[in-house]
Amino acid sequence: MKLYGYFRSSAAFRVRIALNLKGLAYEQAAIHLRRNDQAQPEYRRVNPQGLVPAIEIDGLTLIQSLAIIEYLDETHPEPALLPSAPADRARVRSLAEIVACDIHPINNLRVLRYLTHSFGRSESDIGAWYNHWIDGGFQALEGLLGSDPRTGLFCHGDQPGLADIALVPQVVNAERYRLIMSPYPTIARIFAECMKLPAFETAHPDNQPDHEP
Amino acid sequence: MKLYGYFRSSAAFRVRIALNLKGLAYEQAAIHLRRNDQAQPEYRRVNPQGLVPAIEIDGLTLIQSLAIIEYLDETHPEPALLPSAPADRARVRSLAEIVACDIHPINNLRVLRYLTHSFGRSESDIGAWYNHWIDGGFQALEGLLGSDPRTGLFCHGDQPGLADIALVPQVVNAERYRLIMSPYPTIARIFAECMKLPAFETAHPDNQPDHEP
Repeated sequence: MKLYGYFRSSAAFRVRIALNLKGLAYEQAAIHLRRNDQAQPEYRRVNPQGLVPAIEIDGLTLIQSLAIIEYLDETHPEPALLPSAPADRARVRSLAEIVACDIHPINNLRVLRYLTHSFGRSESDIGAWYNHWIDGGFQALEGLLGSDPRTGLFCHGDQPGLADIALVPQVVNAERYRLIMSPYPTIARIFAECMKLPAFETAHPDNQPDHEP
Repeated sequence: MKLYGYFRSSAAFRVRIALNLKGLAYEQAAIHLRRNDQAQPEYRRVNPQGLVPAIEIDGLTLIQSLAIIEYLDETHPEPALLPSAPADRARVRSLAEIVACDIHPINNLRVLRYLTHSFGRSESDIGAWYNHWIDGGFQALEGLLGSDPRTGLFCHGDQPGLADIALVPQVVNAERYRLIMSPYPTIARIFAECMKLPAFETAHPDNQPDHEP
Protein backbone atom coordinates (compact mmCIF):
# COMPACT_ATOMS: atom_id res chain seq x y z
CA MET A 1 0.00 0.00 0.00
CA LYS A 2 1.41 3.35 -1.05
CA LEU A 3 0.15 6.77 0.02
CA TYR A 4 1.01 9.75 -2.15
CA GLY A 5 0.96 12.76 0.13
CA TYR A 6 2.73 15.81 1.45
CA PHE A 7 3.59 16.37 5.09
CA ARG A 8 1.57 19.60 5.27
CA SER A 9 -1.49 18.49 3.28
CA SER A 10 -4.53 18.29 5.55
CA ALA A 11 -6.20 15.80 3.26
CA ALA A 12 -3.17 13.47 3.30
CA PHE A 13 -2.96 13.93 7.08
CA ARG A 14 -6.56 12.65 7.33
CA VAL A 15 -5.71 9.48 5.43
CA ARG A 16 -2.57 8.91 7.53
CA ILE A 17 -4.69 9.06 10.70
CA ALA A 18 -7.26 6.62 9.27
CA LEU A 19 -4.56 4.15 8.21
CA ASN A 20 -2.98 4.40 11.65
CA LEU A 21 -6.30 3.91 13.46
CA LYS A 22 -6.91 0.80 11.34
CA GLY A 23 -3.38 -0.44 12.08
CA LEU A 24 -2.54 -0.65 8.37
CA ALA A 25 1.10 -0.37 7.30
CA TYR A 26 1.84 1.87 4.31
CA GLU A 27 4.73 3.40 2.47
CA GLN A 28 4.70 7.09 1.62
CA ALA A 29 5.58 8.85 -1.62
CA ALA A 30 6.20 12.55 -1.01
CA ILE A 31 4.64 14.87 -3.59
CA HIS A 32 6.21 18.23 -2.89
CA LEU A 33 3.33 20.65 -3.42
CA ARG A 34 5.41 23.83 -3.13
CA ARG A 35 7.74 22.53 -5.85
CA ASN A 36 4.71 21.55 -7.97
CA ASP A 37 5.41 17.83 -8.06
CA GLN A 38 1.63 17.39 -8.28
CA ALA A 39 1.56 19.05 -11.72
CA GLN A 40 4.18 16.75 -13.26
CA PRO A 41 3.05 14.15 -15.81
CA GLU A 42 4.39 11.35 -13.60
CA TYR A 43 2.01 12.22 -10.78
CA ARG A 44 -0.85 13.16 -13.12
CA ARG A 45 -0.80 9.54 -14.24
CA VAL A 46 -1.48 8.54 -10.62
CA ASN A 47 -4.06 11.27 -9.98
CA PRO A 48 -5.33 13.23 -13.00
CA GLN A 49 -6.68 15.84 -10.60
CA GLY A 50 -3.12 16.71 -9.54
CA LEU A 51 -3.95 16.87 -5.84
CA VAL A 52 -2.91 14.77 -2.86
CA PRO A 53 -3.66 12.32 -1.44
CA ALA A 54 -3.87 9.32 -3.74
CA ILE A 55 -3.46 5.78 -2.52
CA GLU A 56 -2.49 2.55 -4.23
CA ILE A 57 -4.33 -0.20 -2.42
CA ASP A 58 -5.74 -3.62 -3.38
CA GLY A 59 -4.59 -3.08 -6.98
CA LEU A 60 -6.57 0.16 -7.21
CA THR A 61 -5.65 3.82 -7.22
CA LEU A 62 -8.09 5.84 -5.12
CA ILE A 63 -8.30 9.61 -4.71
CA GLN A 64 -10.20 12.09 -2.50
CA SER A 65 -9.52 11.71 1.21
CA LEU A 66 -13.09 11.11 2.41
CA ALA A 67 -13.73 8.51 -0.31
CA ILE A 68 -10.46 6.77 0.62
CA ILE A 69 -11.37 6.74 4.32
CA GLU A 70 -14.86 5.36 3.64
CA TYR A 71 -13.21 2.65 1.50
CA LEU A 72 -10.83 1.78 4.33
CA ASP A 73 -13.79 1.62 6.72
CA GLU A 74 -15.75 -0.66 4.39
CA THR A 75 -12.84 -3.02 3.70
CA HIS A 76 -11.32 -3.00 7.21
CA PRO A 77 -14.34 -2.54 9.49
CA GLU A 78 -12.47 -2.58 12.83
CA PRO A 79 -12.17 -0.20 14.55
CA ALA A 80 -15.15 1.51 12.90
CA LEU A 81 -14.65 5.12 11.83
CA LEU A 82 -18.40 5.66 11.37
CA PRO A 83 -21.18 4.70 13.81
CA SER A 84 -23.75 2.14 12.71
CA ALA A 85 -27.09 4.03 12.82
CA PRO A 86 -27.88 6.10 9.69
CA ALA A 87 -28.74 9.20 11.76
CA ASP A 88 -25.40 9.02 13.56
CA ARG A 89 -23.52 8.32 10.34
CA ALA A 90 -25.14 11.43 8.85
CA ARG A 91 -24.08 13.46 11.86
CA VAL A 92 -20.46 12.31 11.66
CA ARG A 93 -20.27 12.77 7.91
CA SER A 94 -21.74 16.26 8.14
CA LEU A 95 -19.21 17.29 10.80
CA ALA A 96 -16.41 15.97 8.58
CA GLU A 97 -17.83 17.74 5.53
CA ILE A 98 -18.00 21.10 7.30
CA VAL A 99 -14.21 20.83 7.37
CA ALA A 100 -13.60 18.95 4.12
CA CYS A 101 -16.03 20.92 1.95
CA ASP A 102 -16.50 24.30 3.58
CA ILE A 103 -13.19 25.19 5.25
CA HIS A 104 -10.25 23.33 3.81
CA PRO A 105 -10.72 23.71 0.01
CA ILE A 106 -11.07 27.49 0.26
CA ASN A 107 -7.74 27.65 2.10
CA ASN A 108 -5.91 25.16 -0.09
CA LEU A 109 -2.46 26.07 -1.40
CA ARG A 110 -3.68 26.44 -5.00
CA VAL A 111 -6.37 28.92 -3.89
CA LEU A 112 -3.93 30.97 -1.80
CA ARG A 113 -1.57 31.02 -4.78
CA TYR A 114 -4.33 32.37 -7.03
CA LEU A 115 -5.03 35.14 -4.51
CA THR A 116 -1.33 35.98 -4.35
CA HIS A 117 -0.39 35.72 -8.02
CA SER A 118 -3.56 36.71 -9.89
CA PHE A 119 -5.12 39.08 -7.35
CA GLY A 120 -1.85 40.39 -5.84
CA ARG A 121 -2.98 39.99 -2.25
CA SER A 122 -0.49 40.50 0.59
CA GLU A 123 0.54 37.96 3.19
CA SER A 124 -1.64 39.74 5.73
CA ASP A 125 -4.67 39.57 3.38
CA ILE A 126 -4.05 35.86 2.96
CA GLY A 127 -3.88 35.40 6.72
CA ALA A 128 -7.20 37.23 7.17
CA TRP A 129 -8.80 35.13 4.41
CA TYR A 130 -7.46 31.92 5.93
CA ASN A 131 -8.73 32.64 9.41
CA HIS A 132 -12.07 33.96 8.16
CA TRP A 133 -13.04 30.58 6.70
CA ILE A 134 -11.70 28.56 9.62
CA ASP A 135 -13.51 30.87 12.02
CA GLY A 136 -16.87 30.47 10.27
CA GLY A 137 -16.52 26.70 10.11
CA PHE A 138 -15.29 26.38 13.69
CA GLN A 139 -18.19 28.50 14.99
CA ALA A 140 -20.60 26.07 13.36
CA LEU A 141 -18.68 23.03 14.60
CA GLU A 142 -18.39 24.38 18.13
CA GLY A 143 -22.17 24.95 18.21
CA LEU A 144 -22.95 21.51 16.82
CA LEU A 145 -20.43 19.69 19.04
CA GLY A 146 -21.10 21.65 22.20
CA SER A 147 -24.90 21.28 22.13
CA ASP A 148 -25.25 17.60 21.20
CA PRO A 149 -25.25 14.85 23.85
CA ARG A 150 -23.74 12.48 21.28
CA THR A 151 -20.46 14.38 21.55
CA GLY A 152 -18.21 12.49 23.96
CA LEU A 153 -14.48 12.40 24.49
CA PHE A 154 -14.39 12.69 20.72
CA CYS A 155 -16.72 14.28 18.15
CA HIS A 156 -19.11 11.35 18.34
CA GLY A 157 -18.95 9.23 21.46
CA ASP A 158 -15.79 8.01 23.13
CA GLN A 159 -14.02 6.50 20.11
CA PRO A 160 -12.26 8.55 17.46
CA GLY A 161 -13.78 8.50 13.98
CA LEU A 162 -14.25 10.30 10.68
CA ALA A 163 -15.21 13.65 12.21
CA ASP A 164 -12.10 13.71 14.43
CA ILE A 165 -9.99 12.69 11.44
CA ALA A 166 -11.22 15.75 9.55
CA LEU A 167 -11.09 18.10 12.53
CA VAL A 168 -7.56 17.50 13.81
CA PRO A 169 -5.64 18.53 10.66
CA GLN A 170 -7.79 21.66 10.45
CA VAL A 171 -6.88 22.60 14.03
CA VAL A 172 -3.20 22.06 13.19
CA ASN A 173 -3.64 24.50 10.28
CA ALA A 174 -5.43 26.96 12.54
CA GLU A 175 -2.49 26.81 14.97
CA ARG A 176 -0.09 27.46 12.12
CA TYR A 177 -1.99 30.64 11.24
CA ARG A 178 -2.25 31.52 14.95
CA LEU A 179 -6.03 31.45 15.12
CA ILE A 180 -7.17 32.19 18.67
CA MET A 181 -8.83 28.98 19.84
CA SER A 182 -10.52 30.27 23.02
CA PRO A 183 -13.96 30.66 21.32
CA TYR A 184 -13.83 26.92 20.52
CA PRO A 185 -13.41 25.08 23.83
CA THR A 186 -15.09 21.86 22.66
CA ILE A 187 -12.95 21.70 19.52
CA ALA A 188 -9.83 22.39 21.58
CA ARG A 189 -10.75 19.70 24.10
CA ILE A 190 -11.38 17.07 21.40
CA PHE A 191 -8.18 18.04 19.61
CA ALA A 192 -6.18 17.55 22.82
CA GLU A 193 -7.85 14.17 23.36
CA CYS A 194 -7.01 13.04 19.82
CA MET A 195 -3.39 14.12 20.08
CA LYS A 196 -2.92 11.78 23.04
CA LEU A 197 -3.39 8.88 20.62
CA PRO A 198 -0.38 7.58 18.66
CA ALA A 199 -2.54 7.24 15.50
CA PHE A 200 -2.97 11.03 15.41
CA GLU A 201 0.45 11.92 16.78
CA THR A 202 2.44 9.84 14.26
CA ALA A 203 0.32 11.23 11.41
CA HIS A 204 1.15 14.85 12.37
CA PRO A 205 3.03 16.86 9.68
CA ASP A 206 6.01 17.31 12.01
CA ASN A 207 6.48 13.54 12.14
CA GLN A 208 6.55 12.83 8.41
CA PRO A 209 9.66 11.79 6.48
CA ASP A 210 9.26 14.75 4.08
CA HIS A 211 8.77 17.29 6.88
CA GLU A 212 10.49 20.65 6.40
CA PRO A 213 10.68 23.39 9.02
CA MET B 1 -40.13 16.07 5.18
CA LYS B 2 -38.96 19.66 4.69
CA LEU B 3 -36.00 20.78 2.60
CA TYR B 4 -34.49 24.18 3.35
CA GLY B 5 -32.89 25.32 0.11
CA TYR B 6 -32.53 28.01 -2.48
CA PHE B 7 -33.35 27.57 -6.14
CA ARG B 8 -29.83 28.43 -7.25
CA SER B 9 -27.88 26.52 -4.58
CA SER B 10 -26.00 23.61 -6.15
CA ALA B 11 -25.94 21.75 -2.88
CA ALA B 12 -29.73 22.04 -2.46
CA PHE B 13 -30.14 21.04 -6.13
CA ARG B 14 -28.21 17.82 -5.36
CA VAL B 15 -30.57 16.92 -2.54
CA ARG B 16 -33.62 17.71 -4.68
CA ILE B 17 -32.36 15.27 -7.34
CA ALA B 18 -31.70 12.55 -4.75
CA LEU B 19 -35.18 12.95 -3.23
CA ASN B 20 -36.73 12.81 -6.70
CA LEU B 21 -34.73 9.71 -7.69
CA LYS B 22 -35.90 8.00 -4.50
CA GLY B 23 -39.48 9.07 -5.19
CA LEU B 24 -39.75 10.87 -1.85
CA ALA B 25 -42.21 13.74 -1.49
CA TYR B 26 -40.96 16.86 0.29
CA GLU B 27 -41.98 20.41 0.98
CA GLN B 28 -39.52 23.23 0.37
CA ALA B 29 -38.65 26.20 2.54
CA ALA B 30 -36.90 28.88 0.51
CA ILE B 31 -33.88 30.47 2.21
CA HIS B 32 -33.09 33.48 0.08
CA LEU B 33 -29.29 33.55 0.05
CA ARG B 34 -28.93 36.89 -1.71
CA ARG B 35 -31.16 38.49 0.94
CA ASN B 36 -29.14 36.74 3.69
CA ASP B 37 -32.00 34.67 5.08
CA GLN B 38 -29.34 32.10 5.97
CA ALA B 39 -27.76 34.48 8.50
CA GLN B 40 -30.99 35.14 10.40
CA PRO B 41 -31.39 33.62 13.89
CA GLU B 42 -34.47 31.73 12.73
CA TYR B 43 -32.50 29.75 10.15
CA ARG B 44 -29.38 29.48 12.34
CA ARG B 45 -31.54 27.48 14.73
CA VAL B 46 -32.15 25.00 11.90
CA ASN B 47 -28.56 25.01 10.64
CA PRO B 48 -25.94 26.70 12.84
CA GLN B 49 -23.60 26.73 9.83
CA GLY B 50 -25.93 29.13 8.05
CA LEU B 51 -25.71 27.34 4.72
CA VAL B 52 -28.25 25.42 2.65
CA PRO B 53 -29.41 22.73 2.37
CA ALA B 54 -30.79 21.42 5.63
CA ILE B 55 -33.49 18.81 5.81
CA GLU B 56 -36.02 17.85 8.47
CA ILE B 57 -36.58 14.14 8.12
CA ASP B 58 -37.49 11.28 10.46
CA GLY B 59 -37.55 13.74 13.40
CA LEU B 60 -33.96 14.80 12.65
CA THR B 61 -32.38 17.88 11.15
CA LEU B 62 -29.54 16.95 8.81
CA ILE B 63 -27.08 19.23 7.05
CA GLN B 64 -24.38 18.89 4.36
CA SER B 65 -25.65 17.66 1.00
CA LEU B 66 -23.46 14.57 0.64
CA ALA B 67 -24.21 13.41 4.20
CA ILE B 68 -27.93 13.92 3.54
CA ILE B 69 -27.77 11.93 0.30
CA GLU B 70 -25.86 9.06 1.94
CA TYR B 71 -28.52 9.06 4.68
CA LEU B 72 -31.30 8.86 2.10
CA ASP B 73 -29.47 6.01 0.38
CA GLU B 74 -29.04 4.10 3.65
CA THR B 75 -32.65 4.58 4.77
CA HIS B 76 -34.31 4.21 1.34
CA PRO B 77 -32.02 1.78 -0.50
CA GLU B 78 -33.94 1.65 -3.80
CA PRO B 79 -32.92 2.82 -6.33
CA ALA B 80 -29.34 2.75 -5.04
CA LEU B 81 -27.32 5.93 -5.51
CA LEU B 82 -24.05 4.14 -4.76
CA PRO B 83 -22.87 0.82 -6.24
CA SER B 84 -22.31 -2.14 -3.90
CA ALA B 85 -18.60 -2.97 -4.25
CA PRO B 86 -16.26 -0.86 -2.06
CA ALA B 87 -13.95 -0.06 -5.01
CA ASP B 88 -16.89 1.22 -7.05
CA ARG B 89 -18.32 3.12 -4.10
CA ALA B 90 -14.93 4.82 -3.68
CA ARG B 91 -14.89 5.73 -7.35
CA VAL B 92 -18.36 7.27 -7.25
CA ARG B 93 -17.68 9.13 -4.01
CA SER B 94 -14.40 10.51 -5.34
CA LEU B 95 -16.09 11.78 -8.51
CA ALA B 96 -18.74 13.48 -6.38
CA GLU B 97 -16.12 14.96 -4.06
CA ILE B 98 -14.14 16.48 -6.92
CA VAL B 99 -17.22 18.64 -7.41
CA ALA B 100 -18.41 18.95 -3.82
CA CYS B 101 -15.01 19.60 -2.23
CA ASP B 102 -12.78 21.00 -4.95
CA ILE B 103 -14.99 23.04 -7.28
CA HIS B 104 -18.21 24.15 -5.66
CA PRO B 105 -17.09 25.56 -2.27
CA ILE B 106 -14.50 27.83 -3.87
CA ASN B 107 -17.21 29.32 -6.08
CA ASN B 108 -19.84 29.59 -3.41
CA LEU B 109 -21.74 32.86 -3.02
CA ARG B 110 -20.08 33.72 0.30
CA VAL B 111 -16.62 33.33 -1.27
CA LEU B 112 -17.50 35.45 -4.30
CA ARG B 113 -18.88 38.08 -1.91
CA TYR B 114 -15.59 38.13 0.03
CA LEU B 115 -13.67 38.63 -3.23
CA THR B 116 -16.01 41.46 -4.22
CA HIS B 117 -16.39 43.26 -0.90
CA SER B 118 -13.07 42.65 0.89
CA PHE B 119 -10.74 42.35 -2.10
CA GLY B 120 -12.63 44.71 -4.44
CA ARG B 121 -12.54 42.38 -7.42
CA SER B 122 -14.54 43.20 -10.55
CA GLU B 123 -17.27 41.13 -12.12
CA SER B 124 -14.83 40.03 -14.81
CA ASP B 125 -12.27 38.90 -12.17
CA ILE B 126 -15.03 36.91 -10.48
CA GLY B 127 -15.96 35.29 -13.78
CA ALA B 128 -12.34 34.29 -14.41
CA TRP B 129 -12.03 32.90 -10.87
CA TYR B 130 -15.28 30.97 -11.25
CA ASN B 131 -14.35 29.35 -14.51
CA HIS B 132 -10.77 28.64 -13.39
CA TRP B 133 -11.93 26.28 -10.65
CA ILE B 134 -14.64 24.61 -12.75
CA ASP B 135 -12.15 24.17 -15.56
CA GLY B 136 -9.57 22.45 -13.34
CA GLY B 137 -12.15 20.15 -11.82
CA PHE B 138 -13.81 19.34 -15.15
CA GLN B 139 -10.44 18.51 -16.73
CA ALA B 140 -9.88 15.93 -13.98
CA LEU B 141 -13.43 14.60 -14.24
CA GLU B 142 -13.30 14.37 -18.02
CA GLY B 143 -10.06 12.36 -17.78
CA LEU B 144 -11.42 10.06 -15.10
CA LEU B 145 -14.79 9.55 -16.79
CA GLY B 146 -13.48 9.28 -20.35
CA SER B 147 -10.81 6.68 -19.58
CA ASP B 148 -12.70 4.29 -17.31
CA PRO B 149 -14.79 1.42 -18.70
CA ARG B 150 -17.07 1.70 -15.65
CA THR B 151 -18.44 4.95 -17.08
CA GLY B 152 -21.69 4.16 -18.89
CA LEU B 153 -24.68 6.22 -19.87
CA PHE B 154 -24.05 7.91 -16.53
CA CYS B 155 -20.90 8.51 -14.46
CA HIS B 156 -20.92 4.93 -13.20
CA GLY B 157 -22.80 2.40 -15.27
CA ASP B 158 -26.23 2.90 -16.77
CA GLN B 159 -28.10 4.13 -13.70
CA PRO B 160 -27.81 7.63 -12.28
CA GLY B 161 -26.17 7.96 -8.87
CA LEU B 162 -24.26 10.15 -6.46
CA ALA B 163 -21.63 11.26 -9.00
CA ASP B 164 -24.28 12.41 -11.48
CA ILE B 165 -26.13 14.15 -8.66
CA ALA B 166 -23.01 16.20 -7.92
CA LEU B 167 -22.06 16.76 -11.55
CA VAL B 168 -25.33 18.07 -13.00
CA PRO B 169 -25.70 21.17 -10.76
CA GLN B 170 -22.07 22.03 -11.45
CA VAL B 171 -22.69 21.90 -15.21
CA VAL B 172 -25.74 24.14 -14.75
CA ASN B 173 -23.47 26.63 -12.95
CA ALA B 174 -20.87 26.35 -15.70
CA GLU B 175 -23.55 27.15 -18.28
CA ARG B 176 -24.59 30.18 -16.27
CA TYR B 177 -21.03 31.50 -16.39
CA ARG B 178 -20.80 30.55 -20.09
CA LEU B 179 -17.96 28.05 -19.68
CA ILE B 180 -17.13 26.50 -23.05
CA MET B 181 -18.00 22.82 -22.67
CA SER B 182 -16.34 21.44 -25.82
CA PRO B 183 -13.23 20.21 -23.94
CA TYR B 184 -15.53 18.03 -21.81
CA PRO B 185 -17.49 15.79 -24.20
CA THR B 186 -18.05 12.99 -21.67
CA ILE B 187 -19.35 15.40 -19.05
CA ALA B 188 -21.61 17.06 -21.64
CA ARG B 189 -22.93 13.68 -22.79
CA ILE B 190 -23.71 12.52 -19.23
CA PHE B 191 -25.32 15.86 -18.41
CA ALA B 192 -27.61 15.57 -21.45
CA GLU B 193 -28.51 12.01 -20.44
CA CYS B 194 -29.37 13.09 -16.88
CA MET B 195 -31.51 15.99 -18.05
CA LYS B 196 -33.75 13.57 -19.93
CA LEU B 197 -34.85 12.22 -16.54
CA PRO B 198 -37.71 13.94 -14.68
CA ALA B 199 -35.82 13.54 -11.36
CA PHE B 200 -33.12 15.92 -12.66
CA GLU B 201 -35.37 18.14 -14.71
CA THR B 202 -37.84 18.91 -11.92
CA ALA B 203 -34.93 19.60 -9.53
CA HIS B 204 -33.48 22.25 -11.89
CA PRO B 205 -33.27 25.80 -10.45
CA ASP B 206 -35.60 27.09 -13.18
CA ASN B 207 -38.34 24.77 -11.94
CA GLN B 208 -38.31 25.74 -8.26
CA PRO B 209 -41.09 27.70 -6.53
CA ASP B 210 -38.59 30.37 -5.39
CA HIS B 211 -37.02 30.76 -8.85
CA GLU B 212 -36.17 34.31 -9.92
CA PRO B 213 -34.99 35.28 -13.41
